[in-house]
Amino acid sequence: MSKTIPGNFFEDYHVGQRMIHATPRTVTVGDRTIYGALYPNRFALQSSDEFARACGLPASPLDNLAAFHVVFGKTVPDISLNAVANLGYGEGRLLTPVYPGDTLTAASEVIGLKQNSSGKTGVVWVRTTGENQRGETVIEYCRWVMVRKRDAGAPAPESVVPELAEAVDASELAIPEGLDFSRYDETLSGSPHFWDDYLPGEKIDHVDGCKLEDAEHMMATRLWQNTARVHFDPAARDGAPRLIYGGHIISMARALSFNGLGNAQLISGINGGAHVAPCVAGDTVYAWSEVLDKSETAVPSVGALRLRLVAVKNTPAGDMILRGEDGKYSPGVVLDFDYWALMPRR
Amino acid sequence: MSKTIPGNFFEDYHVGQRMIHATPRTVTVGDRTIYGALYPNRFALQSSDEFARACGLPASPLDNLAAFHVVFGKTVPDISLNAVANLGYGEGRLLTPVYPGDTLTAASEVIGLKQNSSGKTGVVWVRTTGENQRGETVIEYCRWVMVRKRDAGAPAPESVVPELAEAVDASELAIPEGLDFSRYDETLSGSPHFWDDYLPGEKIDHVDGCKLEDAEHMMATRLWQNTARVHFDPAARDGAPRLIYGGHIISMARALSFNGLGNAQLISGINGGAHVAPCVAGDTVYAWSEVLDKSETAVPSVGALRLRLVAVKNTPAGDMILRGEDGKYSPGVVLDFDYWALMPRR
Amino acid sequence: MSKTIPGNFFEDYHVGQRMIHATPRTVTVGDRTIYGALYPNRFALQSSDEFARACGLPASPLDNLAAFHVVFGKTVPDISLNAVANLGYGEGRLLTPVYPGDTLTAASEVIGLKQNSSGKTGVVWVRTTGENQRGETVIEYCRWVMVRKRDAGAPAPESVVPELAEAVDASELAIPEGLDFSRYDETLSGSPHFWDDYLPGEKIDHVDGCKLEDAEHMMATRLWQNTARVHFDPAARDGAPRLIYGGHIISMARALSFNGLGNAQLISGINGGAHVAPCVAGDTVYAWSEVLDKSETAVPSVGALRLRLVAVKNTPAGDMILRGEDGKYSPGVVLDFDYWALMPRR
Repeated sequence: MSKTIPGNFFEDYHVGQRMIHATPRTVTVGDRTIYGALYPNRFALQSSDEFARACGLPASPLDNLAAFHVVFGKTVPDISLNAVANLGYGEGRLLTPVYPGDTLTAASEVIGLKQNSSGKTGVVWVRTTGENQRGETVIEYCRWVMVRKRDAGAPAPESVVPELAEAVDASELAIPEGLDFSRYDETLSGSPHFWDDYLPGEKIDHVDGCKLEDAEHMMATRLWQNTARVHFDPAARDGAPRLIYGGHIISMARALSFNGLGNAQLISGINGGAHVAPCVAGDTVYAWSEVLDKSETAVPSVGALRLRLVAVKNTPAGDMILRGEDGKYSPGVVLDFDYWALMPRR
Repeated sequence: MSKTIPGNFFEDYHVGQRMIHATPRTVTVGDRTIYGALYPNRFALQSSDEFARACGLPASPLDNLAAFHVVFGKTVPDISLNAVANLGYGEGRLLTPVYPGDTLTAASEVIGLKQNSSGKTGVVWVRTTGENQRGETVIEYCRWVMVRKRDAGAPAPESVVPELAEAVDASELAIPEGLDFSRYDETLSGSPHFWDDYLPGEKIDHVDGCKLEDAEHMMATRLWQNTARVHFDPAARDGAPRLIYGGHIISMARALSFNGLGNAQLISGINGGAHVAPCVAGDTVYAWSEVLDKSETAVPSVGALRLRLVAVKNTPAGDMILRGEDGKYSPGVVLDFDYWALMPRR
Repeated sequence: MSKTIPGNFFEDYHVGQRMIHATPRTVTVGDRTIYGALYPNRFALQSSDEFARACGLPASPLDNLAAFHVVFGKTVPDISLNAVANLGYGEGRLLTPVYPGDTLTAASEVIGLKQNSSGKTGVVWVRTTGENQRGETVIEYCRWVMVRKRDAGAPAPESVVPELAEAVDASELAIPEGLDFSRYDETLSGSPHFWDDYLPGEKIDHVDGCKLEDAEHMMATRLWQNTARVHFDPAARDGAPRLIYGGHIISMARALSFNGLGNAQLISGINGGAHVAPCVAGDTVYAWSEVLDKSETAVPSVGALRLRLVAVKNTPAGDMILRGEDGKYSPGVVLDFDYWALMPRR
């Protein structure tokens, strides 16, 4: 019997199946540092313990996306080792901040299955949760991936396509315990623009760009213990350049978005996300955002802004057109990420 | 109104203007680790808590240049986002060691302005201070940069050119509280050469060299939250290779200088610094030093050595000639950095 | 007198010579993080404080190979700065786990000398020990290197060739105090295969591969304060690509071996090791293992597995043939590493 990890194929899943994923991981201040070395992160809450304490938190939390990546990485051996494509995310909520010293574990439940007409692949929907060492859920999200069948002749399962919310309802966003922006220091945060200043429909070109390097995306992807071969081994891509983990692009774009959204301190919800096109080393990533919605929260000093974060490659954001008249994504778009951010209100 | 950070142009400054810079930053043991991964640092005081305690400090401090970079990085959005060139440094003093857990903030005051004859740019002099969470100044230094005007037609300000000391007087160097080299272990430090063994005029070829990589200088520059586009985005350089942050070269040269100056444990003063020529990935950096001066300090076991640290690229240090007969820097010189180091005395 | 470090030449050594190596180093959680960014490490004991505590340890220890590299790096200025080749390792034992906050120092004793027939080089055998700040030995191992003579005319020393054990006897392996796998969680560890499931002669193709990058191997090598010029300066290789530190390959192969040996949580002994061929950036490393032996230990829940870890480059492991009929290593083999791992027993 082979002792290597084969990963699951489409016919290995059934709706209701629960998986506890391997490799618990203690995050540390080292993770905060290396995250800041890999992405041009300047959100003050993730940079300064003092700033975080002035906002009512016990210390500077790990970047929400770092927490997402740690949890996501654990799911790869069970969910996407034999995946053809990562199709989307939804119903994501960041529930409890992660602090250095916390140990994260992850589990998933299969919530949907649908074989493709080719008979060679199928779509698997999972709901994944990440917990800390106290059993508190730190993140939950849905993901759907196209997974190969081991045997094309295996019978198709009954199709179950879950109905996912188009977006997390603002009333369901979790505000970290103690978070209070009423003494918010906008000089130290680096941006004078508060929640009140953003209006749905507004677009922001984040101006800055960053060329991607193999050493960097591989370091990031290993840090999250994501083992998909296409990120490391050219042979897994028939010699083509290594594919960059999509989460690397999300983190890069989110960090670039500081320039224009400097007070969007925390990600609270992940409404959707699509990796529209792949990136490889040598590509340069730019980003722009569109304000989709805004909402008050249960905490008077904290507002929620729903944002579409778009990453484009190799030419600056320019006209910020997401899709052409044919409904297809504009050339150069690599990421379409829809999330809720928490910002200070005046 | 655009929400991105435009940076200041020459006509936005006035003498006496004070700026508190954004993004306070808590430094951690992670910063110490990654600094040691990026630069071949072997100074024992920055490597070992035990060695530092034997020298009277509470723990191993963050490398002085790392503290400098953290503070410098914060000034970029306000001082040098629209800079043409970083012209020089002076009157720098490292006043209080920085330890893991400290949170640094930075502020600057404009101390000089002089429009260039072209009318398109001007020189801005600032004095920058970095503070820790207790309000102690950890570093202060002057810097002058050439900054673009937004509008070439804007009137020139009255010229104010500050008189900066040619060097920090040795009597003004701050010796970290408790520092005592009287039980110094030269076996563990890796060098038998004490302050007493160095004489003004002496030159040292540090022998070792290191080829520069894009992934490394970008990681360093992001770590310091330095956002200048030329370091990350080829489009900001019309497609030319990304420019390496000058501070990356200072840190690389300083680390290489261990080989010959292994007991120059701390930087206490920055007398001057010029980035003579740019570096890009693929360049190999070598370094040599010249002893410029030496002085006792208030602590009998601690001597101060004034050093010129010269980085050259792509050919080993060789004859260690700083300038040709025409007074111009020799080919290959990329950095001329004048500083005070603290060393053990016999 | 030159103040740079000349390193020792063959005639500088004598049997019985003891050297305390420079640059004590405090390891931190930052080291754990960066180790995980550089190598695709998924062994749960090195990833999670909670998992480590469930196995009877006070916290997640630093990866055994990271401890090895820290100690090894310290020996380079004294042992191998003028080395032609690193010939082998043996009699290695990992005696005490290293935890964040520990400070490591290293010392070596010359245990053998033999001049080569050319008269230009000789082989030096050393036994190296690494200690923590409490004076506990954390690692000991022998290494032999071919070192240049300064003066080919210098007389040859009396040949002393130490007799090294072919392998560490299983009874001499140190089991970390408190280690107990009786409540081992194989779901969290990511592998259902226990010590009982492996049989001598069994070979395992670890499937995964990773392409090597200059930025990564230099970061690793600097992290271990290994100063050998060939890793950083192309001029030290007459312009050829920088040579990758052999330890980088050991760590990469060991991390890749998770896929098939996911419960081989700790390295306890190093029986031998040969860097069969060099690697440079651009090479892709794959790994396979062969079970050489197995033994019970003094702790009923802990078994010892003797493994040969083989790294190959640029083509997947394939047929896992170590040597051809001529007794020579098969093409592509770059590392032959023989070690004892500690695993849970049923």
